[in-house]
Parts: sequence; C-alpha cells; structure tokens
Amino acid sequence: MHEITIKNAQILTLTEKQPQPFEGDVYIRENRIAEIGRGFPVRGRLLDAAGQVLMPGFVQSHIHLCQTLFRNTAEDLELLDWLHRKIWPLEAAHNEKSLRASVQLGIAELLSGGTTTILDMGTVRLTDVLFEEVAHSGLRANIGKTFMDSGEGIPDGLWEEGRASLEDALRLRKTWDDQANGRLKVNLAPRFALSCSEEILREVGHISEEQQMIVHTHTSENQKELETVFRQTGQRNLAYYHKLGLNKYQLSAAHGIWLNEAEMDILASTNTHILHCPSSNLKLGSGIAKIPEMLGRKIHVSLGADGAPCNNNLDIFQEMRLAGLIQKPRAGVKSLSAREIVRMATRGGAEAVGWGNELGTVEEGKLADLILIDLRKPHGVPVTDVATALVYAARATDVQTVLVDGRILMENRELKTLDAEAVVRRAEEEFAKLLKRANLP
Amino acid sequence: MHEITIKNAQILTLTEKQPQPFEGDVYIRENRIAEIGRGFPVRGRLLDAAGQVLMPGFVQSHIHLCQTLFRNTAEDLELLDWLHRKIWPLEAAHNEKSLRASVQLGIAELLSGGTTTILDMGTVRLTDVLFEEVAHSGLRANIGKTFMDSGEGIPDGLWEEGRASLEDALRLRKTWDDQANGRLKVNLAPRFALSCSEEILREVGHISEEQQMIVHTHTSENQKELETVFRQTGQRNLAYYHKLGLNKYQLSAAHGIWLNEAEMDILASTNTHILHCPSSNLKLGSGIAKIPEMLGRKIHVSLGADGAPCNNNLDIFQEMRLAGLIQKPRAGVKSLSAREIVRMATRGGAEAVGWGNELGTVEEGKLADLILIDLRKPHGVPVTDVATALVYAARATDVQTVLVDGRILMENRELKTLDAEAVVRRAEEEFAKLLKRANLP
Repeated sequence: MHEITIKNAQILTLTEKQPQPFEGDVYIRENRIAEIGRGFPVRGRLLDAAGQVLMPGFVQSHIHLCQTLFRNTAEDLELLDWLHRKIWPLEAAHNEKSLRASVQLGIAELLSGGTTTILDMGTVRLTDVLFEEVAHSGLRANIGKTFMDSGEGIPDGLWEEGRASLEDALRLRKTWDDQANGRLKVNLAPRFALSCSEEILREVGHISEEQQMIVHTHTSENQKELETVFRQTGQRNLAYYHKLGLNKYQLSAAHGIWLNEAEMDILASTNTHILHCPSSNLKLGSGIAKIPEMLGRKIHVSLGADGAPCNNNLDIFQEMRLAGLIQKPRAGVKSLSAREIVRMATRGGAEAVGWGNELGTVEEGKLADLILIDLRKPHGVPVTDVATALVYAARATDVQTVLVDGRILMENRELKTLDAEAVVRRAEEEFAKLLKRANLP
Repeated sequence: MHEITIKNAQILTLTEKQPQPFEGDVYIRENRIAEIGRGFPVRGRLLDAAGQVLMPGFVQSHIHLCQTLFRNTAEDLELLDWLHRKIWPLEAAHNEKSLRASVQLGIAELLSGGTTTILDMGTVRLTDVLFEEVAHSGLRANIGKTFMDSGEGIPDGLWEEGRASLEDALRLRKTWDDQANGRLKVNLAPRFALSCSEEILREVGHISEEQQMIVHTHTSENQKELETVFRQTGQRNLAYYHKLGLNKYQLSAAHGIWLNEAEMDILASTNTHILHCPSSNLKLGSGIAKIPEMLGRKIHVSLGADGAPCNNNLDIFQEMRLAGLIQKPRAGVKSLSAREIVRMATRGGAEAVGWGNELGTVEEGKLADLILIDLRKPHGVPVTDVATALVYAARATDVQTVLVDGRILMENRELKTLDAEAVVRRAEEEFAKLLKRANLP
C-alpha cells in the first residue's frame, strides 16, 4: 500500500470554513487524502513540512503544451498576426520529437511551479504524444485534439477535414480517457470560430452533450478577430457558440475579453467557464477581461498561462499576481480579493478542467494533489495574510514539494519524473531543427 | 590587490554596438572592469561562468527600504488611504531595530534578485541606519532623508520642522556622501507636494543646484492627490515643482502617470527622470504611465519596485515584465521593445540614480557591478533573443552571482554579506513588535 505522512505543515485547506492555515499533519493513502489531524503515527514515507504551507496544487485551465518550444520567438504581435506568421507555421512544423520536447519542457516548468493539473488544447496531429508525456510525468491533465477544418491562413500541416478530426478525437477518448490511474481526461477542442466550420462546431456540441466531454476553445479575445466572426456569422463570438450548442454540457472558453451584456447573460445562465489568461491578454495587446463583473454575476472564472509564446512563462504565480493588479486601476482597488484569486487558481480551475468534486481543497477523501510551499523568504515575509502573500509576494520557486495523485513529483525542488537539464538541452536542440523546418525568417 | 577573473561568460555589454551576447572573459581589478577579452591568464579569484549571461547589475531608481517590513499588510487601498491608514503610522512607529530589520530584508531581496544599485527615499528619522546597512551589505545606493514638514494626516513621529530636516540632510551629506569606497550618495527627498511646505521645496531647489544633489520625490501618481495639489497651489504637480526650481540640477521623480502636455514639455526640456513603478501604479489603482510617449520625446525613464507594501516584491524582473505588458493593450504591441526595457532597468536607472557615467554597461573602466544569470531553465528556453528572455521569461532566482564594486555579494545564490534566514527571522520578530507600537487594527 502506498502511504505518505506529511507532518507539521501549515495546512491551508481553502475550504470556506478554514480560510487561514493551521498546523497539522496529513496522511495520504494511495492517491487520496485519508486523514487530516495532529500527532497521529507516521505511516509510509514521512515528509517533514515544518515552516511550510501545505495547500492544493494549482490548476491552470488554459495551456498549449505544444507551443512551449516557441517561447521568446513570437514577440510584439497581435493575435491574428501572431498565429498566422509564427504560431501556426511552427505548430505545423512539429514532428514527434519536437512535440515531445515541447511538452516535456512545459511540464517541467508547470510541476516545478506547483501546477498539478491543466486543461490543454493539444494540437491537430500527434496529440497522443501529449497524453504519453503527461502520463509519464505524473501531471494530471484534460487534453483535447485541436480542430482546424476551415478558415484563412491555416498551413497544410494543421488543416484537417472535420469528420477525420472528430473520429480522431473519439479514438483519443477511447484510448486515453481515465487512463494513468484516472489522471487523464479528453476534451473537444475546436480552436476558435475562425478555424472551424459551422458543421464541426455543431457536431462538437452534439458529442459534448452525448459523451459528457468538456468543450475547450477560445472566445472574444481580439477585436479584429471578433469583427471577422461577426462578418462571417452575423453573430458575436459567444452568442454564436451558444446557438451551435457548444455549452450544453460544459464550455471552457479562454479569454472572454470583449463580451457584451447579452453574452454575459449566456455565461451566467449556462455551464460556461471563462479561462482568464491575464499575461497572454496583455502580451498580445488584446485587452483586460471584466473579471470582477463576471464574478459579481456568479460566472465561473479560472486562470491559465495560455502558451509560452504569448506569456512567456507557464507560471500560476505570475497569473495570480497580474489577475489582481490589472483590475485595480480599471475596476477599483477592492474589486478582486487575493482570496478570490487563489480560489480561481485552485477550486475554480478544478471545476473548469473537470475535477471539481475531487480537487481544489485539502479535505479527507479528495485526491492528493498537494504542494508544500515556503513563504518565509526575503521576498515573502512578513506573511500577514496567506492569500495576499501567495498572490502578490510568492513566486514559483517558493514551491518546494509537489504531489499529484499521491505521488511525489518534486521534492525540495528536485523533479522526480523529469531530468530538467536534459529537458532544457533537448528543447534547445529540437527548437533549432523545428525553426529550420518551419522556414521562418 | 583585489582581482577576479570571470571566464567563459556570455557577455551582454548593453552598449549600442554589441546588443547580443558574445562568449568571453572579464578581468576585474579592485572595483573596476579592467579587461574584456578571451583567453587571457586568470588573475586573482576565478569564476567560471560557462552557460551564464554576464551583464550589468540592475538599477532600481525608486525604493523605500524602510517599508519592506510592511509587506503584505496594506492591501487593496488607494494611495492616500494607503499612506494615512497604514504606511505613515507604520513608518512613524519604526525604532532603530525595526528599521534595521526592514532595510536588511529589502537588501537581501534586492541583491538576491540581481539589483545592485538603488535610489532610496529613506525615512524622516534614523536615516543613518539605511546608510550603515547599505555600507555593510555591499549594495550601492543613493539615499535621501524624507522631508515631511506640512500637510494633512502626518503622524507626530514623521512630522519634522523644515529647517531641522534640511540641516539633518546636510549632516547626512557630510557624513555619508562618497563613503564605502564611493558606493554611497545622498539625495534630497521631499516626500511629495502634499507633505511639504512651499518653503522647504524652494530651499531644496536651491541646495540641489548649489550642492549638485539629486532631488528624489513623487509626482502625478493619484488623481485625488493631484486635485488636492491643484486646490492648494493652483498648479499641476510637476509644473509646481518646476516653478519652485526642483529640476535645476536633477529631478528624479517617481510615477508621472497623470501628466499633461505642458508637463511633458517640462520633462523633455529639463534634467528630469521619471522613475516608473508599474507594479505599484497598478496595485494602488493609480493608473498606467505613458512610457512609450515619454520615450518618444526622449524623456529619461527608469524602473523601480517602489516599497514592498505596494508591490509586494522588490523584483526588477517583475517590473520589467509588467512595464512591457501593460503598454500593449493601451499603446500597441510594438510600443515598447524588450531591449528598451532592459536599458531602462540598467543604464536608465544608473542615470536616474547618479552613476550614469560609471554603471549600466559592461565596458573596460566601468565600475564592476555585474551579475551572472542562468537563462537556460525550463521556464526560460529557448533564449531566441536575450532581451526578450530577460524581460518576459527570466525571474529573480535565475540570477546566480552578484558583484558590486568588484566584490562578490552573492555566489551561486548564496548571499555573502547577509544571513538570509536570520534576516527573515528578525523581520518577523520586529514586524510583530512594530505592529503593536503602531497600534493599527
């Protein structure tokens, strides 16, 4: 039997009734939190967490692991130029080795910064590589194969006929759903309105409802994009998705910057999650999403770094801090509390990704996706309020130890399932080759 | 003779003619860069920098070390509430021990994140403590005693009669200027228009010109503040400073968010430096300074974290990244290049702080304030462009080794002049006592 006892932690449960940390021990049996208390006997492996905060692992609800390799290489561009000139040609040029290097690089960064679960958009071809690497690394992920069957500027290597895409998605579902001890899920990922035919979107709506699969897409990111959607469909972006039935089961849609009141009503009245990516929204010059207004209407919001080339990190601490900072001049200094931001980065993410009942709090019976974090550093003290310290003062390297599904994936900052130096070296090698294949200037 | 040879570095000179790094060695004699080349004999201590970027240490041109102890404890407030309810009562409650703990905490964070020079605003009483701690730590700093002789809401412990303040400032100048092998300078620091009489500001202008001392203050940060300045003086904030002669020698003024065209003209036609603090400007809900427009008019701009309680870090990497991100939705994705941001954080800062001819580039004859940084981490590669990687992907913990004035102050992330754990412990202890003295809710 797999057992771990974590002693002397400052336990931050993130439940409503225990907002502040308390000193205690946590007993993990197999992949779940079996007991929370004080002074019980050590069973299995002992981790001494004295001085560290134990809390749920972070969840990032919008990631493109296939793009990690394009970091620092698609600068100072708006969304459509960024896609057409850089991201799509690079994504089309992936082979199995470069994709594997990209995914490993992203996972190494995510795990070493305390992110334990992600919602990923995959890519059009070779999406099995993502499942294989996530399975091996120990991360938890809901991954979709990207659909791109229509629209301008799609390179040959990314375009795929709609029916073939849907069949491949269903094959991935059969192959990978609930595998790796339940750490893997499969979503449906039409990239965005401008790369999908109406037919495939409608079919995605049907399959989502029938098979209870989350639809993972982008919405209302860039104003030029929206104008084109409106010209092509006669509707605003989210209203169009709604009409096609994409939100009948669960729609997890990144960005949501330029939504009007009617679209806000759709968000509030359907199971739609806005995946807020503040770094990406600024980096691509897209705008600032009205998150406090959404939360005021009980709309589901979670956080994600998006892809490395529009960020340029995959760092939940950057996203939390920025999510708070950017609202203050616009919506007021009290518009979004640190506690709410931590909730978006944990429980809110778990709901957006499909593990809402299993993750996001430290409670007996929940899955043991946990991190130990040392906030007592020169850049972090005094820790007057733990949520404030997490959002505004802490950084990714403060995370010391990471467990997913009861397994230790990082201990005292050493990754256990990935060799960080080898991952960096392979990324550099594969990126150089990829750049040649993509034939970019 | 003190000698250090750094071998095999990727040297980023930040000079106009060498924007990209090249592999080479640097020889340091006493406190200066004596030779840059390749393959010369090792003299003195050897540092092997293989795989690391060698570049100028970062300069932060607006810091309040006395406030570091108030981190995480003055949340979700606008400027004037933040000052009146939290910062001034806390600053007034400092004794020598708490101030020392605050300064050490800030210096530990700054040095471990690659900041080697600062412009600091000091505090009203006990400013000698800052000079002592900076001298001991090895940091380079231009420090001012804060002037607060007039205005609403000033606690007894901070108010000081103008003449006494000026005399103390001149005493500090005599005691500390050019001490610690030239690492210390003294500035004149009227806090802001709302805490200073017209008499003291006018006198500051005279002394600045006569003694060639930089005036370090705040300007045009918050709209309510500006309305009050206008009501009291009949003028806009920067125009008022100009009228009183604060910019006759050099005015280094933090923020500059709400400037009109006439004030922009003053900036462009005088030796005035805008000390841009993007985290602080968002955190206090103040707004976004028009930095690209200023640079377009050849106005001097540099970067600073401000104080820990409005940030909540003292991290130049956060400031660089945010400086770039926040302009993109407002002024366009190409409005501020990564290279320009790195320049603001090095050379631009050196000019604002008073070492413009001595610091900010890696050149023979310059002061040896240098850092070694490892960008080849899972969150940093590929390093397609070094300025991009520094601004958008790198983080404070990537800085491995720090030299100031030719002395190694951090090596492989271990601080040499400060015991980081003891600094953290003392900060926690002194903060608890300070909070009781300040008698805050």
